[in-house]
Amino acid sequence: MPVYQDPVDGAVVQAEKLRAWTEALVRRVGTPPDIAADVAEILLASDLRGIASHGTARLPQYVKLVEAGVMDPTARPVKEKGKPALARFDGNNGWGHHAARVATEDAIGRAKEIGAAISVVRNTNHYGIAGWYAMRVAREGLIGVCLTNTSPLVAPTRARVSMLGTNPIAVAAPAGRFGMLVLDMATSTIPRGRIEVAARRGETLPVGWAIGPDGSAATTPEVALAGALQPLGGQEETGGYKGYGLALIVELLTGILSDAAFGPNIVGLFSTEGKSDLGQFFMAIDPAAIGDPEGFEARLEKLLGQLTSAPLIPGAPGRVLHPGEPEAERAEKQAREGIIIDREHHESLLELAQKHGVPFPDLR
Amino acid sequence: MPVYQDPVDGAVVQAEKLRAWTEALVRRVGTPPDIAADVAEILLASDLRGIASHGTARLPQYVKLVEAGVMDPTARPVKEKGKPALARFDGNNGWGHHAARVATEDAIGRAKEIGAAISVVRNTNHYGIAGWYAMRVAREGLIGVCLTNTSPLVAPTRARVSMLGTNPIAVAAPAGRFGMLVLDMATSTIPRGRIEVAARRGETLPVGWAIGPDGSAATTPEVALAGALQPLGGQEETGGYKGYGLALIVELLTGILSDAAFGPNIVGLFSTEGKSDLGQFFMAIDPAAIGDPEGFEARLEKLLGQLTSAPLIPGAPGRVLHPGEPEAERAEKQAREGIIIDREHHESLLELAQKHGVPFPDLR
Repeated sequence: MPVYQDPVDGAVVQAEKLRAWTEALVRRVGTPPDIAADVAEILLASDLRGIASHGTARLPQYVKLVEAGVMDPTARPVKEKGKPALARFDGNNGWGHHAARVATEDAIGRAKEIGAAISVVRNTNHYGIAGWYAMRVAREGLIGVCLTNTSPLVAPTRARVSMLGTNPIAVAAPAGRFGMLVLDMATSTIPRGRIEVAARRGETLPVGWAIGPDGSAATTPEVALAGALQPLGGQEETGGYKGYGLALIVELLTGILSDAAFGPNIVGLFSTEGKSDLGQFFMAIDPAAIGDPEGFEARLEKLLGQLTSAPLIPGAPGRVLHPGEPEAERAEKQAREGIIIDREHHESLLELAQKHGVPFPDLR
Repeated sequence: MPVYQDPVDGAVVQAEKLRAWTEALVRRVGTPPDIAADVAEILLASDLRGIASHGTARLPQYVKLVEAGVMDPTARPVKEKGKPALARFDGNNGWGHHAARVATEDAIGRAKEIGAAISVVRNTNHYGIAGWYAMRVAREGLIGVCLTNTSPLVAPTRARVSMLGTNPIAVAAPAGRFGMLVLDMATSTIPRGRIEVAARRGETLPVGWAIGPDGSAATTPEVALAGALQPLGGQEETGGYKGYGLALIVELLTGILSDAAFGPNIVGLFSTEGKSDLGQFFMAIDPAAIGDPEGFEARLEKLLGQLTSAPLIPGAPGRVLHPGEPEAERAEKQAREGIIIDREHHESLLELAQKHGVPFPDLR
């Protein structure tokens, strides 16, 4: 349930065509076919769900990292060490999407044996939406949890500068007639992309979204973009130290636990100065280990039924939603009618297509 | 790092005396000695840390539940079923503190064998501060995670009524020269107790803390107490749906996963109408399973060093803190100088002491 909707007008591309093009483009820069298929599938899942910031719009930057020799498109993750419930992978600085999928599926297999299992990955790269990996677990009937650290963009409570990433938390579970429960949230109040949208729209910003370079609340997108995001909860008075704490816990379970880069030391996706060396965390929990899995899903269905039929506040823009509901609806619609990508996004893909000689599909 | 400090004036009781009295009182109402010792230790840990709302101040209510026959003071938890990484306990409707300690220690033992392990407990009761159980794990050099569902006090985004608890998230890890990292936070913007404090102080409330019975933002404590708390992030515009999502995930991993009561169906601590049947989640993750544990702690120490020396925003009330830092300082001070309890709290304990013939210790 995002505060804002991603593009509602722009070019419309058929999902399967965009997927096939993405796969071909990713192969063209030196990626083995099976890895390219993973990257394309996961980027398209993001575009379908309306999370344009984490889908094919990232391709130009990924390709830049490959071309700069900062990311290895041929690398495969290797399971290094561990015990049945906790294993560590070296991502070998390859595509984050593929390493994350491998680590997730490894955790699923172990969780089905022993009830729950974690994989952590170090030396890896940006992997798109955290929600995809949590949903991958939920599709097996298990509870999925996925965390990653990211480039530092968020100022801890009281600090003036960015020290932590937007470090997302994703959790998914099968939910009967509600399909799936999917929480996929940055631990900052809003993602940086939302401020870029505000800049394009000429909006002012509410207190709690961001601070300017001097550390005071940013009321315009321009000041915010020169400053830092605020953690969920905003300022100290409204509980921002909780969002800071959550971002730090994500860092603990990713960069710190896996022995990857962490916090302000992460070079990140938007620089070709060095490899990202991200840390990621994937957990699968199997309700069948302690009870009847149908009972689990029925209880969740009952709770979501109660929540979504609650009496509303005045002026509510609609009924209570469950996490992941608007994204699932959008995915269904866009799978049918095509994916809307905005002009800037479309142009960046056309440029990539031309440069690499992989013709971009016709618009719908 | 609470927005407010718990009592800074009031009666001062020596910690060991208050612990011994609590243990004696809990035994007097029919609790076996070892269970009473757990309850006293955990309640005192809360008082020492300055979280008065979750310490001995809860005793009168616990005793009410015992006297009403709604909680069984003699009950012991039983491990029902599970696999090596996920086990379920039946709390048998006994003291939540003891069942939680048993479940936590069971998870620690299994995590040391297989790298990570989860215990869930159903049919249990309020257990004091979630942080205690996470810290119990961290004292072993492992990462501890503890979640519980609670009485419904929080309105989901867009809803007018309370449907979910303040469902806390606690995570702890050993942190070298910083002692311990301890995040222990409700997933609401503030706890209900903070609004009671505002009422006593005659304060007005910021938007994002609570809504009134009609669903609009509560600006006075009186309206808020008749309404519902808001999830972390406050209103929809400032990301309140994320706090709602977090509260729901806590519910998923506690009540729903363990097959306990959940969401609006929880009777809760403040009613003797029925048993609480809470669900709780305890996880231990052993960094030694995938690497050198000293390396893990050194990395965390480095990160906390970076965060706590960050340049500050104008008007910051002090340097950047790490989660759990003010509570640890207060615990050290109060262990030395005695625990400050406010008048209302003191009077309620005197009353309990008199009623049950267990003389309350002299003040310091």
